[in-house]
Amino acid sequence: MKEQSIAEIHVVPLGTATPSLSRYVAGVVNTLKQSKDIEYQLTAMGTIIQGPLDRIFELARKMHEVPFTMGAQRVSTTLYIDDRRDKLGSMENKIEAVESKLKS
Amino acid sequence: MKEQSIAEIHVVPLGTATPSLSRYVAGVVNTLKQSKDIEYQLTAMGTIIQGPLDRIFELARKMHEVPFTMGAQRVSTTLYIDDRRDKLGSMENKIEAVESKLKS
Amino acid sequence: MKEQSIAEIHVVPLGTATPSLSRYVAGVVNTLKQSKDIEYQLTAMGTIIQGPLDRIFELARKMHEVPFTMGAQRVSTTLYIDDRRDKLGSMENKIEAVESKLKS
Amino acid sequence: MKEQSIAEIHVVPLGTATPSLSRYVAGVVNTLKQSKDIEYQLTAMGTIIQGPLDRIFELARKMHEVPFTMGAQRVSTTLYIDDRRDKLGSMENKIEAVESKLKS
Repeated sequence: MKEQSIAEIHVVPLGTATPSLSRYVAGVVNTLKQSKDIEYQLTAMGTIIQGPLDRIFELARKMHEVPFTMGAQRVSTTLYIDDRRDKLGSMENKIEAVESKLKS
Repeated sequence: MKEQSIAEIHVVPLGTATPSLSRYVAGVVNTLKQSKDIEYQLTAMGTIIQGPLDRIFELARKMHEVPFTMGAQRVSTTLYIDDRRDKLGSMENKIEAVESKLKS
Repeated sequence: MKEQSIAEIHVVPLGTATPSLSRYVAGVVNTLKQSKDIEYQLTAMGTIIQGPLDRIFELARKMHEVPFTMGAQRVSTTLYIDDRRDKLGSMENKIEAVESKLKS
Repeated sequence: MKEQSIAEIHVVPLGTATPSLSRYVAGVVNTLKQSKDIEYQLTAMGTIIQGPLDRIFELARKMHEVPFTMGAQRVSTTLYIDDRRDKLGSMENKIEAVESKLKS
């Protein structure tokens, strides 16, 4: 079984003409659509990616570039990685581990 | 209609005996269960909260305290707020706005 | 001796028409100038604050509001807290602890 | 003149048994010492790096790995990039731009 990390990424263009950024976010998330080796989930605050760590870095680099190709002149990107190597985990496992403890 | 902000919060105890933190995360998320005036969603990377901004700050302060009551000696908390005041939004609206642009 | 936490705060207005944000950052940092009970340091990426934790939350709430009073319609704020309670620390102590280990 | 980005990085080992992390932070910062093409500054909350963006990603990937080589089993890394392409900037320029507006 391959090692997997989980990360959250926020790619935010600054100095755009309007406060609405969904057009840029859609462009950024499109980068992930063609990636077969990762899983991702769009949340209200960012995008969560699960996959090999090197791939996550590579995709974060590509995602960061997208708003510039759409006209932005300044982009603020946050990549937040949770990398656990004592056991294999997944986005689902992490949520289940918390939820099982919430019930008890 | 009341103004609502959306925020993501990560409360991470440092120097715990094991890399497993789900027990602490469950304790932190429990703080939100009794709160009627907010909505929240547990993700693989944190907790997303929607509600009045002052309430979000108040809850973040409480959530930060939880791992200390469970024995932690150092806690790293990140509160990431997205506060848009030109129009009312929600966690669902934000995701829908991106997804409608992904389809087109 | 009073308990002190250390935090970093980023207050970023979105949709500001120009990529230059220093005018807003100056407005945000001004909030701290009148605060006698905290210490702060402006870095290239944000503002580091040292002080009582409740005060840090209170100031973060005020700082977040500043860009709205200057015309912004959307503000993204990140508050990143490092709260260690097993010993008293300061911004200087933390850097010194690392630097002493870098030399050795 | 080469394009430069500015980023802040936090590399935090979890489950380390003691809340003191300076030993790990020193290890992480050591990665930067041999890098001639970047500038960096250690702050109380993280490390600020200035340099070519691809280099920043490459170094972040290396820094993230360091705590694992020192025994950590879980590492949480945050890479926060500010990439402005309408004009050349530096860590010093960014602070000066704010400070000149604070005085006036």
